[in-house]
Order: sequence, then C-alpha cells, then structure tokens
Amino acid sequence: AVHRIAVIGGDGIGPEVIDQAIRAAEVAARKHDGADLQWAKLPWSTAYYKQHGRMLPEDGWDQLKAYEAILFGAVGDPSVPDKITVHELLLPMRRKYDQYVNLRPAYLFAGVPCPLAGKKPGEIDMLVYRENTEGEYAPVGGNLYPGTENQIAVQTGVFTWKGCERILRAAFEAARKRPRKKLTSITKSNAQVYGLGLWDDVFHAVRKDYTDVDSGSLLVDAAAMDFVRKPESFDVVVASNLFGDILTDLSAAVTGSIGLASSANINPTKKFPSMFEPVHGSAPDIAGKGIANPLAAVLSAALMLDHLGLAQSAAAVRAAVAHVLATGAVRTPDLGGSATTTQMGDAVVAALA
Amino acid sequence: AVHRIAVIGGDGIGPEVIDQAIRAAEVAARKHDGADLQWAKLPWSTAYYKQHGRMLPEDGWDQLKAYEAILFGAVGDPSVPDKITVHELLLPMRRKYDQYVNLRPAYLFAGVPCPLAGKKPGEIDMLVYRENTEGEYAPVGGNLYPGTENQIAVQTGVFTWKGCERILRAAFEAARKRPRKKLTSITKSNAQVYGLGLWDDVFHAVRKDYTDVDSGSLLVDAAAMDFVRKPESFDVVVASNLFGDILTDLSAAVTGSIGLASSANINPTKKFPSMFEPVHGSAPDIAGKGIANPLAAVLSAALMLDHLGLAQSAAAVRAAVAHVLATGAVRTPDLGGSATTTQMGDAVVAALA
Ligand SMILES: CC(C)[C@H](C(=O)O)[C@@H](O)C(=O)O
Ligand SMILES: CC(C)[C@H](C(=O)O)[C@@H](O)C(=O)O
Repeated sequence: AVHRIAVIGGDGIGPEVIDQAIRAAEVAARKHDGADLQWAKLPWSTAYYKQHGRMLPEDGWDQLKAYEAILFGAVGDPSVPDKITVHELLLPMRRKYDQYVNLRPAYLFAGVPCPLAGKKPGEIDMLVYRENTEGEYAPVGGNLYPGTENQIAVQTGVFTWKGCERILRAAFEAARKRPRKKLTSITKSNAQVYGLGLWDDVFHAVRKDYTDVDSGSLLVDAAAMDFVRKPESFDVVVASNLFGDILTDLSAAVTGSIGLASSANINPTKKFPSMFEPVHGSAPDIAGKGIANPLAAVLSAALMLDHLGLAQSAAAVRAAVAHVLATGAVRTPDLGGSATTTQMGDAVVAALA
Repeated sequence: AVHRIAVIGGDGIGPEVIDQAIRAAEVAARKHDGADLQWAKLPWSTAYYKQHGRMLPEDGWDQLKAYEAILFGAVGDPSVPDKITVHELLLPMRRKYDQYVNLRPAYLFAGVPCPLAGKKPGEIDMLVYRENTEGEYAPVGGNLYPGTENQIAVQTGVFTWKGCERILRAAFEAARKRPRKKLTSITKSNAQVYGLGLWDDVFHAVRKDYTDVDSGSLLVDAAAMDFVRKPESFDVVVASNLFGDILTDLSAAVTGSIGLASSANINPTKKFPSMFEPVHGSAPDIAGKGIANPLAAVLSAALMLDHLGLAQSAAAVRAAVAHVLATGAVRTPDLGGSATTTQMGDAVVAALA
C-alpha cells in the first residue's frame, strides 16, 4: 500500500532530525509491512514566512488535507515572534484538524543515562495523554490599557465537557490495554475550581465506564514532585493542555533526554490528518551543526507508523532505537557522546536492516 | 521586644509540625535576639468549620490584623471540599493581606538523600519568588450548562502591570543581594500570549533597572526540565502564581523532601500581617501518627524571624536544622529514618541550645 505523508521540517534542527526519521520509517515500512511511504516536503517555516509574509500558502490548510499524516520538525526562530511561527502554524494545526489527543510516551531506555539516582531501564514507562485543542491554550484573552501601568491582561482557559470527555476516554482506552491498567488524571482544581473543576467532574463520570482501570486524581504540583520521586508509579497520565505540556518536558527529563521524547497529535476520527513531531523545539543554538539527536523524530515517526496501521514497522523502529541506545556505540552530545545526527540515523537504519 | 504571632495550625499534620516550629523559634529568639514571642493559637480549621459552619469567625480577618505575623500549618481535609477549606481561609488570606511575595527557598542540605544522581550538598540553592495574589489563581470564571454534555467552563487568569512589577522587583532585589546575582523569569508566553505576554513586557521594563543582575527568561516547560537536569544553574527564580506552585513542588522534590520546603507569604509594606507556612499540605494519610517532618514548618518559622527583624535567630534556626540533617541521627520517615515529629523538634531545640 502507498501512504502519502506531508513533511514540514520547519526551523532550526527540525529539518535535520526529520530527514533521519524519514529514512528510518521508509526502511521499516518497506521491510516489515511492504508499505510504500511517499513524502511531500513542504517548505513552511520561518524562512518561508520571511519570503512570503505568511507561514504557509493561502490554501495551505486545504493542501495538507490530501495527506494521511504530517511529519513535523519544529517551528520557532529568534528573529520572528512566536505569535507568528507558533500561532500561525503549530497551534492552529492542532485545532483545525481537531488533533485532540497529544500522546507523549516516556520510557527509560537501556543505555541512556538517567538523571535520577538508581532507576533501572524500563522502570519508567508512561504514556501521557495531553488534551490538545482547548483549555489553557484557548486563544482567548486580551489587554486593557496596554503599555501603561494600568495594564490588565486576561487569559481565559476554556474547557468543554466534550473536550474533557474525549481525551479522558482516549486515555482510559489506552490504560485498559496496558498491563498495569492504571490511570492518573491531573488537575489543579483546588485552585482553578471552574475550568479544572469541570475536568474533575467529567473524570468522575467517565471512570464509571472503566472500572477495570485503577484510576485516580493528582494535583499538578504533587504530580510534578512524583515525576521525580517515583516516576515508576505512573502508567497512563491524562492532563490538560498546559499541564500536559509541563509534565511531558518533565517526563522527558527523567527518562534521560528531550532528544528522545516523541509525540503524536492525533485526530482519532481520521477526518483530518494527524501530525507527528518530536517534543523538542527548533533549538536555534545547535541548528546547522548536525549534532541534534534525531531519535525523538524517529520515535515520532514510529507513532505515525502505528497511526497508519503499520504496527510491525512501528515496533521495528522502536526496537532499532532501543538497540542503538543499548549498545551505546553511537551517541549524540545530549546523551554524552559525540556522534552526528546522520551517524545516529545511520545506526538506526543499520539496526533495521 | 515582644512579638505577637497568630498561630493557625489548621488540619491534619498542620498543628503537629507547627508545635515544633514554635518551640524552635521561641528558643532561638530569646537566645539570639533577646526577643519574646507571644503566640495566640487560633483553632480555625476543618473541625472549626464543622462546628461553626465557617472556617473562621465573622470578625476573623479583623482579629488577625492585630498580629505581626501568622504561623500557618495547613488546611484541607477529605471530608470537606477545598472550595471551603482552601478558598475560605488560605487563598483569601494571601489576597486580603496583599501577601504578594511568596518566597520559597530550595536548598540541598548535607545529609539529605537527593533523588538526583551526583548532586553535592549546597549545589542546589535557589529562591523562588512566586506571585501570590493574582494570575491563574484569580477567582474569576464560571460555567454554562452545568452538569450537561454542553457544559463550558471558563477560568480566567488576570494579570496586572502592577502585580507583575512588584513581584519582579522583589525578585530582582533579592537577586542583587546574592553572590551569583542571577534571575530567571518563567512564563509560557509562546502559548499564553495575553496574560504571560504582559508578564514578559514588565520583565523587560523592570530589568533595565537591574543591569547588575544576570537576568533571563525561560519557558515553564523548559524550566521544569532544567530543575531536573541542572537545578544548580538556578539562583533566583520568579514565576506566576500557578507556575510558582508547580515549580516549588519540583524544587522541593529535587532537594530531597517536601518535608523540608518552607515558604513565606509576605506583604512587604507590613500594612497587613505576613504568613509563614510549610509548602506541604495537611497530609491526611499520616496525620495523627506523629511522624510528619516538622522541619518545613521550622524553616518557615525561620523566614518569619527574618521578617520580624530577628535575623540572628533566623540564622540560628537554619544552622540548627542544617546541623540536625548533617549528623543524620534523627530522621523522620520522609528522610529515610524512623524518628517522630517530636524527636525531630527535640533535636533542633538541642542544637539551638
Ligand atoms: C492548597 C493550594 C491551593 C496551595 C496553592 O496551590 O497555592 C498549595 O499547593 C501551596 O503551594 O501553597
Ligand atoms: C511551541 C509550544 C507552543 C508547544 C506547546 O506548548 O504545546 C511545545 O512546547 C510543545 O510541547 O509542543
């Protein structure tokens, strides 16, 4: 079968890491599922913006709908405000295509130095389900008396029953399929009684349908603490947009490197394309040096293969990454080595062959 | 001199740990500053609520104004919603008395097991300045179509120029007095452009007055990661109400125990009393067992002594705590030992004597 995938490398290290992800996914898909991946590289980025005055062409959002999936690098550049790069491409994509599930696994691979004392490989193994379309990221707010000492800014988080329910159900479904069948719902409803109070109410309604899952609630501050104290106690974690953002940088940190943190922005209805991107950003400080760790992008491509129904290829990519990390011969600087982005990609491809 | 202090032990382990804090503060103040601390114990708590239908008497807020400081344990009980315990006592206190500086130090003491690999005592040493009266904790929001599938909840963060400026200035003043003179301002203004966009604008305006301070901005997700990867890189950190809450549970975790995390809720104008409380909550699971670590409360009392102008006593309490932790003979369960709350208090008092 043929799968058509849009590739938006974006800015900074985005294109560098995505190139390696493409190689790995292609080899795996052909070998393990006999599938043919076809890539359409789209130059949408800060450079594109500087030339055209917009992050993507006028019909860009329509163009993208022709693809089954989007492989995304990163956007963001010091020379252009995030209000443009992030707010005209990444964040609207999540909402326009209703990619309401942001799945971010965190796994402590063998061979990866862990900043926490005494953790064993495989001991940290969680899936964070981050709500991806509403909540604290709603583009709702404004300013009064701007630029004066009387300035007041409001930023409104908007939570809907439907929005809370669908992410909670997605997380419960995932928990049900895992050996530990455990789910932790994160809020800060002792302080944010309206928005996250609703989340808690929906949680209590939904969990009634999942009595086989060991589910509970945790406040975000306590969760942040426990991600450090006992990350092994988490299985599936479900959180709002903002808390999911914070907690997944934390889960990346405790599993060794943001250079290994992958994510899937999924529209489960498949009405619109889903998007797959490393959790890390464009990292302008190391862009162009060829030293970025491509494994977060490679693992994001594995999540994409899963979404395309190519489960064997996805598993093969993950196994190849695990193998490369375990042998430890090839390591980018974030993992304490001096390998290049391409060498790391080569190692994955070799492990797949 | 005589100092009159209101004591609200509150719920759970609150009264247990506060008792030890009182002992230590009293001994230190008498010995090192010749000061006499007079304590007025107020029974305001969940038990009080169950009896009187309110968390504090009708004139409670006026009563408290007669004191120079408030030593606070914790509120919260599984049998009563946080909407009452937290929202009718703790959170309004911070706002009513305009305690806009929430100062939360995090220090890795010798003798305390650190969950991070390879950190040395003293290597982690930060002061978090948390905005304490507005932002994401503003009691602003509501619900439409409650209890139905059409429910929509909004939670509005309210940020003012004045509110941002005063906490930023307090943090810059503190940074200026520290050897490293470093300040990190935390936002998530790439996603929350209105509220935290204002914060960033004020930060850029205020830092012009502090060119002797090495100041910079960090996104909250990156900060959470760096609190794990390189906590030693932080000196003074300044954050909004919500981000300060999350990051200080994290800074407590990386410095070994929430049982050591102290806080000061300060009104720098002294127009209203300031309040001093451990960062931990009422911990119903261990309440009444006499095993809670009182050192967070003891260190909070030290912050209170500072506020009362009893700097030598404050330093003595901190030194006593450091001594007790370093010798390691007496340790509560959170630190890996089996000492009781009282034994830990005894050890501090002995070290002070
Ligand atoms: C009880 C709760 C509302 C409170 C807060 O979030 O401020 C607590 O977590 C704290 O850190 O003091
Ligand atoms: C770029 C930024 C807005 C984004 C987010 O906060 O969602 C990023 O941090 C992420 O985690 O994907």
